[in-house]
Amino acid sequence: MKKYFLLLNSVFLLISCNEKSTSNAITVNDIIELNSAISNAKPGDDIVMANGDWKDVNIKFVAYGNEQKPITLRAETPGEVRITGTSDLKLAGEYLIVNGLHFTNGSSPSSAVIDFGISQDSVANHSKITNSAIIDFNKAQRNQTDLWVLFKGRHNELDHCYIAGKSNRGPTVRIDLAGNNSIKNYHKIINNYFGPRPPKGGPSAETIQLGNSFTSMAPSYTLVANNYFEHCNGEVEVISSKSNFNEFRNNVFYKSEGSLVTRHGNYCMIDGNIFIGDVDSEQIGGIRLIGTGHWVTNNYFYNLKGQTFRSPLAVMNGIPKSPLNRYLQVTDVVVANNSWVNCVSPWQFGVGSNTDQKDILPKSEIRSATPIRTIVANNLIYNDKGDKQPIITHDSVDGVSFKSNVINNQGMKFKDLDGLTQKDFGTTVTDGVILMPNSSLSDFELYNGFEFDQIKADLFGNSRTDNTMVGAVVGKPVNKKDMMDISQYGPDWYANTASKNEMNKTHSVSNVAEFTSAISDAISGDTIVLSAERYDINSSIKINKAITILAAKTDAKATIQYKGAAKTPAFEMNPKGQLTLKNVQLIGDNEQYAFASLKNNMSSLYNLTVLDCEISNFDYVLKAYKLSFSENITFKSTQIKNCANGLDLSEETDDKGEYNAENITIDNCLFDSVASNVVDYYRGGYDESTIGGNLIVTNSTFTNCGAKAEEGLLLNTYGIINVNLANNKFLNNNVQLVARLWGAKNNKASDNEITKSGKIIVEENLPLKLMY
Amino acid sequence: MKKYFLLLNSVFLLISCNEKSTSNAITVNDIIELNSAISNAKPGDDIVMANGDWKDVNIKFVAYGNEQKPITLRAETPGEVRITGTSDLKLAGEYLIVNGLHFTNGSSPSSAVIDFGISQDSVANHSKITNSAIIDFNKAQRNQTDLWVLFKGRHNELDHCYIAGKSNRGPTVRIDLAGNNSIKNYHKIINNYFGPRPPKGGPSAETIQLGNSFTSMAPSYTLVANNYFEHCNGEVEVISSKSNFNEFRNNVFYKSEGSLVTRHGNYCMIDGNIFIGDVDSEQIGGIRLIGTGHWVTNNYFYNLKGQTFRSPLAVMNGIPKSPLNRYLQVTDVVVANNSWVNCVSPWQFGVGSNTDQKDILPKSEIRSATPIRTIVANNLIYNDKGDKQPIITHDSVDGVSFKSNVINNQGMKFKDLDGLTQKDFGTTVTDGVILMPNSSLSDFELYNGFEFDQIKADLFGNSRTDNTMVGAVVGKPVNKKDMMDISQYGPDWYANTASKNEMNKTHSVSNVAEFTSAISDAISGDTIVLSAERYDINSSIKINKAITILAAKTDAKATIQYKGAAKTPAFEMNPKGQLTLKNVQLIGDNEQYAFASLKNNMSSLYNLTVLDCEISNFDYVLKAYKLSFSENITFKSTQIKNCANGLDLSEETDDKGEYNAENITIDNCLFDSVASNVVDYYRGGYDESTIGGNLIVTNSTFTNCGAKAEEGLLLNTYGIINVNLANNKFLNNNVQLVARLWGAKNNKASDNEITKSGKIIVEENLPLKLMY
Repeated sequence: MKKYFLLLNSVFLLISCNEKSTSNAITVNDIIELNSAISNAKPGDDIVMANGDWKDVNIKFVAYGNEQKPITLRAETPGEVRITGTSDLKLAGEYLIVNGLHFTNGSSPSSAVIDFGISQDSVANHSKITNSAIIDFNKAQRNQTDLWVLFKGRHNELDHCYIAGKSNRGPTVRIDLAGNNSIKNYHKIINNYFGPRPPKGGPSAETIQLGNSFTSMAPSYTLVANNYFEHCNGEVEVISSKSNFNEFRNNVFYKSEGSLVTRHGNYCMIDGNIFIGDVDSEQIGGIRLIGTGHWVTNNYFYNLKGQTFRSPLAVMNGIPKSPLNRYLQVTDVVVANNSWVNCVSPWQFGVGSNTDQKDILPKSEIRSATPIRTIVANNLIYNDKGDKQPIITHDSVDGVSFKSNVINNQGMKFKDLDGLTQKDFGTTVTDGVILMPNSSLSDFELYNGFEFDQIKADLFGNSRTDNTMVGAVVGKPVNKKDMMDISQYGPDWYANTASKNEMNKTHSVSNVAEFTSAISDAISGDTIVLSAERYDINSSIKINKAITILAAKTDAKATIQYKGAAKTPAFEMNPKGQLTLKNVQLIGDNEQYAFASLKNNMSSLYNLTVLDCEISNFDYVLKAYKLSFSENITFKSTQIKNCANGLDLSEETDDKGEYNAENITIDNCLFDSVASNVVDYYRGGYDESTIGGNLIVTNSTFTNCGAKAEEGLLLNTYGIINVNLANNKFLNNNVQLVARLWGAKNNKASDNEITKSGKIIVEENLPLKLMY
Repeated sequence: MKKYFLLLNSVFLLISCNEKSTSNAITVNDIIELNSAISNAKPGDDIVMANGDWKDVNIKFVAYGNEQKPITLRAETPGEVRITGTSDLKLAGEYLIVNGLHFTNGSSPSSAVIDFGISQDSVANHSKITNSAIIDFNKAQRNQTDLWVLFKGRHNELDHCYIAGKSNRGPTVRIDLAGNNSIKNYHKIINNYFGPRPPKGGPSAETIQLGNSFTSMAPSYTLVANNYFEHCNGEVEVISSKSNFNEFRNNVFYKSEGSLVTRHGNYCMIDGNIFIGDVDSEQIGGIRLIGTGHWVTNNYFYNLKGQTFRSPLAVMNGIPKSPLNRYLQVTDVVVANNSWVNCVSPWQFGVGSNTDQKDILPKSEIRSATPIRTIVANNLIYNDKGDKQPIITHDSVDGVSFKSNVINNQGMKFKDLDGLTQKDFGTTVTDGVILMPNSSLSDFELYNGFEFDQIKADLFGNSRTDNTMVGAVVGKPVNKKDMMDISQYGPDWYANTASKNEMNKTHSVSNVAEFTSAISDAISGDTIVLSAERYDINSSIKINKAITILAAKTDAKATIQYKGAAKTPAFEMNPKGQLTLKNVQLIGDNEQYAFASLKNNMSSLYNLTVLDCEISNFDYVLKAYKLSFSENITFKSTQIKNCANGLDLSEETDDKGEYNAENITIDNCLFDSVASNVVDYYRGGYDESTIGGNLIVTNSTFTNCGAKAEEGLLLNTYGIINVNLANNKFLNNNVQLVARLWGAKNNKASDNEITKSGKIIVEENLPLKLMY
């Protein structure tokens, strides 16, 4: 924020000789006054929205400022003007500034929360949204599409904003390039804090998308710089560049489950970004390259475990003469002076190669065109522990020139590669997790490729002229803020309001009335202890926050007997509901559900963890309705008995790549006498870039199950990408198949004992509907 | 040329304060001296090639000049250094100039005559070829591919050159964009004279091609300006732009049978060009648009009759999500301030629409995507005679905005179009064929679209600021040379040598000896008069120039009895052979051919005209071998009797769009007892942009023919695009079919009398091999 005022001041300073800077502040208290102020706005006007909630407002900020005298629409106090309810903001005109608004507790009635245009022909130029926030401003259901910031026009800016929590369909921020008035736009997305975006369970959940395939020939020249992306997990692409000449500089991708992808369009510059992973996650990616002429320089990759599509550097195979919306061949790409530290198999080439599927897929889906005229030079790989396979070549790399790259793999052998030299060098910490090689590499001769002289500085901006060195860093940062210092991202007011965390409590409840009121009173994160032995519940318990419910004694389960109506759940999982249920015996009378999502309006995801429980006599153990989504469903050390159906997450049958849960984990459980849908987990539509869901079933026993199973299939995992069945026992289940695994994907089974229960088969290529 | 020296002088002038301009002239007499001079060349060197023929030289001009001191390789006297034989010129380095060379009487041993590079990595930059010529420098056969000028690198130039006569496969001039060192090239192709390029009979005969589909995403920024294109008839594209941001300005396309086509790539500027047609030709096109963001402004179209792919303005349909090498949808295109004068149906939209073929072609070949976000504004159409259909919409034009266009159609009604106003205005001649409306239109209000303020000047450079007017011209040219004055194009020395035309003669020959020596002595254009009644010829008469042979008396035919070996022709058609045979009785003894091409090395086309003759007792009347090509084959008022085969032009069976003749005309002839291949004319391969050949058969009689016809088909025209059979008689031919016409193309039959000769059928969609 400060930076911005500094800039603005200097602009005013520059023009002060010629023009008197007169700010004409107009305070407005409601939409009528606001509309009037806007329609009368003159260059230099400063329209001030009074603090408070502005509910159900559709603001059309159409006005014409000029370079010297923009027109500002701002909060009386930044962050204290809350836009709520069914609200949106559209801008058109020239030199407009929006400052300090907070979109919360509502959703847009239109296709965008903030739109830099009101029609194809009427767009905003030279305008900016600054120091503002959009939080959880979700439409009611995840299939209802919108964007939170939609860029049109030219020379617009989103800066120092905080944006988090989008769970419905649609990229968070999108650049529209349809129409000559929106090309060569030189938009800037800078200094923002992109907070967590939960996984959506299917495509169209990018954090930033620049264009689309239909306009992917357009020159965009958008700058995405100095942003912080934290847990941006919406889908496999955090940033999806689909236009030309974009620049991505000095962004931090912190534990974000996706990659920066040059999906369509060409000639992008990806320079000086930091990608930080997590030892526990294989979902966090780096940079994935498709297309022509991209330059990838000075980037730093740390602790990344993602593979193939999500690998730290994924250079894809293309489709020969690709259709516009598929995969163009990689050509004329330069990857130079980057560093990979403690990443698993960080370089992968020919990613997406699927020539083995040429008999079952149409020719226009076969990615057989390997990268050509591509240079990988002067890069650094450093591993604390040796990596068996630092480079994976999924297809030929004949078209890639490797030059003057260095690896310290702690002496561990791997398949050699010309142009990648093994060296035993030490490292120096330059800043936080950022390492550089010590001086032992300083005389290693670098490759000087065409226009490599343009790589003038390192990740920190240090000159490379006198300090040649492989990797992203040649020295410590000088006069530069630590990129990991999050205070420099987003609005200056947001950190304060976000820190008002209340203290969590434990509620001990000895009867149903206390239980019910505790559920209602609890704040997110609280624990409810069941001190009685038994609770007879007559209506669903609504879970819309993080709640842990557990028995008072660790050695005896509390009993919850659910006596509600048929087809209602004991626990109703609402958006943002996160239930941990521990040490409870949960009993129905065969007509109800133990757990279920809402049937409609699942605007955000829910999570469910069941530990050390017994669940019996339900129609469904878990019923996930269409459009509901859970990131994590976990059953551990739990017995499930005498239920008509088990875990049913199979309602997304539109075959568009959507599914009902990201991760399902079943460990050390017993399923006894569950008649059908023991586990029914479905994902439809051939879409190679959707790489969920994930099912793990381990150390569990299934017996007398599947009597009414559809297709005689005990565990139905149709279209799920990652499945692992290990160390289970399947005893006396009257089914033909325990499971049908998808051989072409990451499905596996091991060490299972199967007795009188059919078998596990592997089908190499499932017939799936093509999505494109 | 003068302009260039002026420029160079001024550069020298500018630097004269700092550096002394020292020209170091080094005269070289052979390739050894030349190589030595090149390898020792220093900035400022002026290497002078001695006048004369330089045969079989492979010049590698690799040197490094600088901006102030380029290195020059020049002819002692411009035009007097002839590069002949198996020769080529490759350049690499910086600031090189080649001046005054004449490539003639030879061909390149490599893939280019002049190449701005010696390898992928070693290219020329800031270099130019000036004041030079490449004439008839053809490889031996038309399937042997080369380029005459191949651009690589950046900032190179071809200026004031004369280039004509290419008949082998490959564009005349090509820009290569593979590799980062060849993008953003800012090459200039300026002030050249592109002389006649004969039709090739199939694809790959562009005069200029900028890139290819594989590199069509590359930014090129090539300028093609102030060139004259005369009879550039190689194929359907005179200029094929296949990259981005190219500019085509102030070129003249004079009776060139093709169009300026934005085939791949986007955002091209086509401004101020003149397209001049011919009342007699439907082959001459204008501008054909594919792709995104092109601006077409200030162009003048005169007397054009081309239709669909060749229409004066052809806005194509695209293929949805087109493969890289097919047809991208037209989007965001602007067509403004152009003039069409006396053109037939000048505006055609949705060209190439083939949704009616969706059942027989793969989805990836169906052009169903109509133009969108396209603006056609402020244009002028003027017709001396009313046009029934000035605008043809082959598909929906819902995505095109027509604004403030004006037509004077002399009151003739046509289907109305919003945004095209009929006005009865007069015209003023501004220059040659260039008209503008008179003042009656001066108050017509123009449309002001996005960035229309960038259309600052008219075709002649007159400012549009104070003079708003529809069409390409707002006033007479001021201080500007007439664009039709050809003296400003090409080398200054070429016009002189070209004017050395010898006078044509008539040779009267009374015996075979005289006949034979006349054939040998004649120069192109001469006539040989057969004064005897009969000539017995024992070996083939070689025709390698334009020769007319006719009987002395108009009322009695001379007889030529051909007694040569079996399978040899009476007349052997060589490259550039043009035979007119009139009033001759040509007789064989059943084993020979009357006319045939060479079997090999048909480096250029031949033409054959047969008038008032009788041809009998041959194995073949005309045998066209593979790779031979004729532009015109005409038989008029001629009787053909007792031959095993007729006209056989069916050897191009590779199905790559090639064919053996462009135009075949048979009028007022008799075919009697021709057993097979009466007419066998073949073109294979589905390629919608190849729009030949052409067969016209009129007023002729076919009797007792086809006894041994393949498939029982009398006239085989498989794959020929334009066929017209009219007013013929087919009597007593023992065949099943007279002809099988191609309904989807321009095949038609009318007023034919058919007796005991099978029938004519129409097949809507021929099964053809897909070429792409």
